[in-house]
Amino acid sequence: MFTTPHGGVETPAFMPVGTRGTVKGVLPRDLARLGARMVLANAYHLHLRPGEETIAKLGGLHAVMGWEGPILTDSGGYQVFSLGHLAKVDDEGVTLRSVVDGAEVRLTPEKVVDIQRALGADVAMAFDHCPADPSDRAGVAAATARTRAWLARCVARHRERGGEASGQALFGIVQGGVFEDLRRESVESALEHDLAGYAIGGVSVGEDREQMRTAVSAAAPLLPEGKPRYLMGVGTPEDFFDAVERGCDLFDCVTPTRHGRTHQAFTSQGTVNLRNTQWREDKSPLDADCDCPACERFSRGTLRHLCTSGEMLGAMLLTLHNLRFFHRLLERMRGAIAEDRLLQLRREILEPMCRR
Amino acid sequence: MFTTPHGGVETPAFMPVGTRGTVKGVLPRDLARLGARMVLANAYHLHLRPGEETIAKLGGLHAVMGWEGPILTDSGGYQVFSLGHLAKVDDEGVTLRSVVDGAEVRLTPEKVVDIQRALGADVAMAFDHCPADPSDRAGVAAATARTRAWLARCVARHRERGGEASGQALFGIVQGGVFEDLRRESVESALEHDLAGYAIGGVSVGEDREQMRTAVSAAAPLLPEGKPRYLMGVGTPEDFFDAVERGCDLFDCVTPTRHGRTHQAFTSQGTVNLRNTQWREDKSPLDADCDCPACERFSRGTLRHLCTSGEMLGAMLLTLHNLRFFHRLLERMRGAIAEDRLLQLRREILEPMCRR
Repeated sequence: MFTTPHGGVETPAFMPVGTRGTVKGVLPRDLARLGARMVLANAYHLHLRPGEETIAKLGGLHAVMGWEGPILTDSGGYQVFSLGHLAKVDDEGVTLRSVVDGAEVRLTPEKVVDIQRALGADVAMAFDHCPADPSDRAGVAAATARTRAWLARCVARHRERGGEASGQALFGIVQGGVFEDLRRESVESALEHDLAGYAIGGVSVGEDREQMRTAVSAAAPLLPEGKPRYLMGVGTPEDFFDAVERGCDLFDCVTPTRHGRTHQAFTSQGTVNLRNTQWREDKSPLDADCDCPACERFSRGTLRHLCTSGEMLGAMLLTLHNLRFFHRLLERMRGAIAEDRLLQLRREILEPMCRR
Repeated sequence: MFTTPHGGVETPAFMPVGTRGTVKGVLPRDLARLGARMVLANAYHLHLRPGEETIAKLGGLHAVMGWEGPILTDSGGYQVFSLGHLAKVDDEGVTLRSVVDGAEVRLTPEKVVDIQRALGADVAMAFDHCPADPSDRAGVAAATARTRAWLARCVARHRERGGEASGQALFGIVQGGVFEDLRRESVESALEHDLAGYAIGGVSVGEDREQMRTAVSAAAPLLPEGKPRYLMGVGTPEDFFDAVERGCDLFDCVTPTRHGRTHQAFTSQGTVNLRNTQWREDKSPLDADCDCPACERFSRGTLRHLCTSGEMLGAMLLTLHNLRFFHRLLERMRGAIAEDRLLQLRREILEPMCRR
């Protein structure tokens, strides 16, 4: 459990992704019902459109998102990586092209803190440098050093702009790619600042599962146990078990929402492609174990009809289902941790999913 | 009020359109909360995909739509008109190209009754011939004669296939274009059959408002007052007042849902285009009078951000709002009729809408 100006969050927890101020295809009211307690939005995308000043004038990000619970904003560091072909990084900051209109955008650690202050996020993320290739040692070392320098600038700016006083938390981000020693160094440099939480970045960027485990194992246990340890951009049910076992307790990923829109569903028996002809006359629900609005009322056959017809309702229902699947998984993990039977739950959940 | 196997409907009532078995972008649960009691689906579209046999195997149209209330299915007569370039009409039926895959589809009065029997609609519509040009007298006369012959065949088939015994209602459709005498003749031929309800078709097909009034005035008062009189494909708030004053009490139209998806909102002060720059920093709700999920929690500025960003939530919220606007309007009309002050309500509602 950690606390924010908009309430507490029991961990481990999954944060649905609302990049542009909306979790795609889901009403905020329904998001809360699915079990979401904290959501993520993206400072970079909101800076481009509609702009943090517009959001501030509209009452801040909570008003714009129609969300009364905690909000974490990502700083844009990951976008510099994912939109790498549009970005140039130097020691001062990053220059990149807007994905909205192609205009030049300049981001610095100070600017990114200012954007997140204006948005009014409960948790602001430091501006980090996520290296293009997590297994290029020289590139990772340079990005890690830059991330350290930028964190110091973010912390100073955040204090200067009244961040701490307002209750807004600033989380530092650990880089270091797939290298254990660089991960440890990056943790140490993050811990030079007494922050409300710490994140592990630069994972789920192309490395394999074993490399991700190495990176997480090198970093997570060194981070303070009493503060949130947020593994960024992860992931799948198996990833959650791997990461929680190593001490992580906060996650975000576009998977449940993006897969919902492309008609892939997570179920207790593995993933299902709803466009498949085999479901055409199938009267059974997507997942007999699930209590989401899709499983309560619709058959696989109906979902297939909605998906193959390109009806909005297909994407909406599968998004609701996938998010419910993720939140229910995390609920069960919290219960299992309390009862000290996380490994047993891992087997119970992952074995039927991999059997198909 | 009229009754169906899935419950009663207080009239006048508006039916949201769920062409392919879903009111676009709306969960059935939310549809009921907005005030919808009866919904429309389209037999022609559902015949093409997924097919009435598949729907029957999935438990029928109510199961597929996740809708426990009454459902009316349109027969496809209007699609023969709207997809006229793909259709050939003869006395036996219609041959047209599928909008799904271009395959040849043959529809006859008998086939259309069979499709609607298999779907399990509460109200099936007779197969009619909606003429291409409502002011071409020769064309309208021929289509009206054909509609009469087809109705007799629909009634016979419906009886033969146990329609009446099952509780499924069959509504006849009145044609006659903009010609008062042809409208009267068409009413008389429909009344040759003692049906559960009657519809006025061939309106809102390109004629002007005065011509629509003429057509409705010629037909509606001749239809039995104790049975539903359904004005097909209409319309706007002004149309509802015009039609209810002339005796109509059942309506459907794609306007609220389609306008929602194109970011047009109905409000008590007239229609609003949410993409307009003027709303960028507007903190006020879309309509201060409205209790829908969009107006309860979102500002015009936020809605504009969602719409200009192409986010699903923009279309979803505006669809919910427009449907709530329509259902609330009909609720108020029912109240005003009970208190004999419909004309007063007409002024109260339409004057502020036209002032802008």
